[in-house]
Amino acid sequence: MRMSSCLPCGFTIPMTQSIPSSGLQIRSLVKSTGEFELSLVSIPTPTPGPNEVLVRVDAAPLNPSDLGLLFGAADMTAASQGGTKDRPVITARVPEAALQSMAGRFDQSMPVGNEGAGLVIAAGASDAAQALLGKNVAALGGAMYSQYRCVSIQQCLPLPPGASAADGASSFVNPMTALAMVETMRAEGHTALVHTAAASNLGVMLNRICLKDGIPLVNIVRSRAQTEVLRALGAGHICDSSSPTFIEDLTRALTATGATLAFDAIGGGPLAGQILTCMEATQSAKATEYSRYGSAVHKQVYIYGGLGSGPVQIERNIGMAWGVGGWLVFPYLQKLDPSVGRRLKQRVADELTTTFESHYAGEISLAEALHLDAIAVYGKRTTGQKYLVSPHKR
Amino acid sequence: MRMSSCLPCGFTIPMTQSIPSSGLQIRSLVKSTGEFELSLVSIPTPTPGPNEVLVRVDAAPLNPSDLGLLFGAADMTAASQGGTKDRPVITARVPEAALQSMAGRFDQSMPVGNEGAGLVIAAGASDAAQALLGKNVAALGGAMYSQYRCVSIQQCLPLPPGASAADGASSFVNPMTALAMVETMRAEGHTALVHTAAASNLGVMLNRICLKDGIPLVNIVRSRAQTEVLRALGAGHICDSSSPTFIEDLTRALTATGATLAFDAIGGGPLAGQILTCMEATQSAKATEYSRYGSAVHKQVYIYGGLGSGPVQIERNIGMAWGVGGWLVFPYLQKLDPSVGRRLKQRVADELTTTFESHYAGEISLAEALHLDAIAVYGKRTTGQKYLVSPHKR
Repeated sequence: MRMSSCLPCGFTIPMTQSIPSSGLQIRSLVKSTGEFELSLVSIPTPTPGPNEVLVRVDAAPLNPSDLGLLFGAADMTAASQGGTKDRPVITARVPEAALQSMAGRFDQSMPVGNEGAGLVIAAGASDAAQALLGKNVAALGGAMYSQYRCVSIQQCLPLPPGASAADGASSFVNPMTALAMVETMRAEGHTALVHTAAASNLGVMLNRICLKDGIPLVNIVRSRAQTEVLRALGAGHICDSSSPTFIEDLTRALTATGATLAFDAIGGGPLAGQILTCMEATQSAKATEYSRYGSAVHKQVYIYGGLGSGPVQIERNIGMAWGVGGWLVFPYLQKLDPSVGRRLKQRVADELTTTFESHYAGEISLAEALHLDAIAVYGKRTTGQKYLVSPHKR
Repeated sequence: MRMSSCLPCGFTIPMTQSIPSSGLQIRSLVKSTGEFELSLVSIPTPTPGPNEVLVRVDAAPLNPSDLGLLFGAADMTAASQGGTKDRPVITARVPEAALQSMAGRFDQSMPVGNEGAGLVIAAGASDAAQALLGKNVAALGGAMYSQYRCVSIQQCLPLPPGASAADGASSFVNPMTALAMVETMRAEGHTALVHTAAASNLGVMLNRICLKDGIPLVNIVRSRAQTEVLRALGAGHICDSSSPTFIEDLTRALTATGATLAFDAIGGGPLAGQILTCMEATQSAKATEYSRYGSAVHKQVYIYGGLGSGPVQIERNIGMAWGVGGWLVFPYLQKLDPSVGRRLKQRVADELTTTFESHYAGEISLAEALHLDAIAVYGKRTTGQKYLVSPHKR
């Protein structure tokens, strides 16, 4: 009989969790005709290989980074609801202009969900896998909007004693992204950061990290309400891009912090260029000699999200020492020295319920995630309404 | 008495070149009031320090990269001619919107001219400086629109026997830029190049280098006439951005070459983004598995010029593995291992009249450079009309 440890007291107890032969999973399908479908399918419960564990997924966040795969460029404002209450089916259409960009996934029914957490209810033969049996783990690797998910032990983060699946559901994407931003800052020789959409769940974590580690952070938000959220969290520099004094405010904050690196969740529109413009104004004001090429100090914006639509627009009043580029946390982590990756994961575990605490607007079942009312809330690309999917909620 | 070698035969002869006490120099002035003035001033001939040489400048090109400092954002379409025939004065105004970007040079009379070539007529005490006496050298370092210019020996490239000052006048900016592009390609793991404004003097050199070294090169030009120029030079891939089939042509050329790095002289407008879009289409077509983040292959555009006006516009159909940034040859060379820099300089000297041959629309004196007729020709930011300034022409 398999054994497990009682989480609160550590006492070894027999594993009594029965393992169903199948479970539900959210699927997203884009047909080559442009038809789009979101549905629940029943899939056989997989058996873990030697270095794998089977996780009963108890909580998985609906992150902005999940929406691209989930909705597949479909026009969700014109989506329809069908199916039954327990097995809803959402249908929509992918606009003609966006269809070709989806060609790589045509007619493949795709599981979704970057991360989640739950109880390990079966484990492969290796000692490392067995050691996770009966523990709550966070896991990364896609397909987390499933009742049961088999993952490799490398994709797991054992949660600290007392941490619930809900506590650990967002252990990877936002915490590792925020920590990787700070690592990037140090590795590329910057000493301060700019962050946009800064009142986001991720932004709140980054603000806590920077306050704790003494890193000057310029928070750019898009409303007065978000300014107040960050002010209440002790943020020092908050610039509201909807304010008429935004450019002056940002320039002043950049002068105070010396920030020459920004992480931008928005992308489309003028913001990335405005950040570079203000950085250049700050840096060239310090120059002792005129150069028609502008400041020699490199100014960088990494775009990691797509909250803004339309093209990125960069005015050429930024000198020649600048860069704008796409940035994704997982390719970044894959290139890191493994010891650095372990250090970051350990920090997430150590500060899971403080620095990396997440808030959710509500918990919904897999079926509820496929309701138009819920989609209207979590599908909006705005800050502050994040849902947690509870795959075993009825 | 100083001695020198006869250039054609190598015979050592006494230095008979007399050194005038002063010489003319072009100056550019932006006043804080927005008034702009180009003029000739007489300056005392400097005496070289131990590791310096005095060059009688015989030829200096008017490169696109000189125009920014020369015209200082003034509106040259409304410029006026004044002064005398020998001492012309051009006046104009800097538009209000651009004035603040010139604050770093307000009321400073600035010499101009990135590069040039001429005879070393005096040298400092060091052996290395003395070794250059009587030789034709190319030199870099600004203020080359002068009759006499003192430069450090590190800024000099001794021209090969038989090469005239006109042959060597453009030894630095374009040749080193073209070679540095190839070095950057190799250092950053790319195997082919894209170049825009590719029928430029620089583009012609890059085409010769790539043909010689077997590097696939995609040449982007802006007219049918420029297509013909490059075709006559043996270029393999030429895409005309004024053609209605440009996007298909570019995608086909990128598929054939596998190029994932572009150097762009234009900057403003959609071109840099179009290059990334076509690179991404090429790379994601090769992918075996769908990723909503697009191809994992990094795609890079370096913007090194400003022939296009308006903001750089980048559509977000390029995945997440991309970068756009400013790029300048001299900061790049400063960061290079010195042995690489020496290798590149040696190649320029070795291939000065082949790979790195330049063509000029005409030779003009310092005074002629300050005539509105000449400015109307060399001030146009188009490909193919480059003047050579001959500071001792009367």
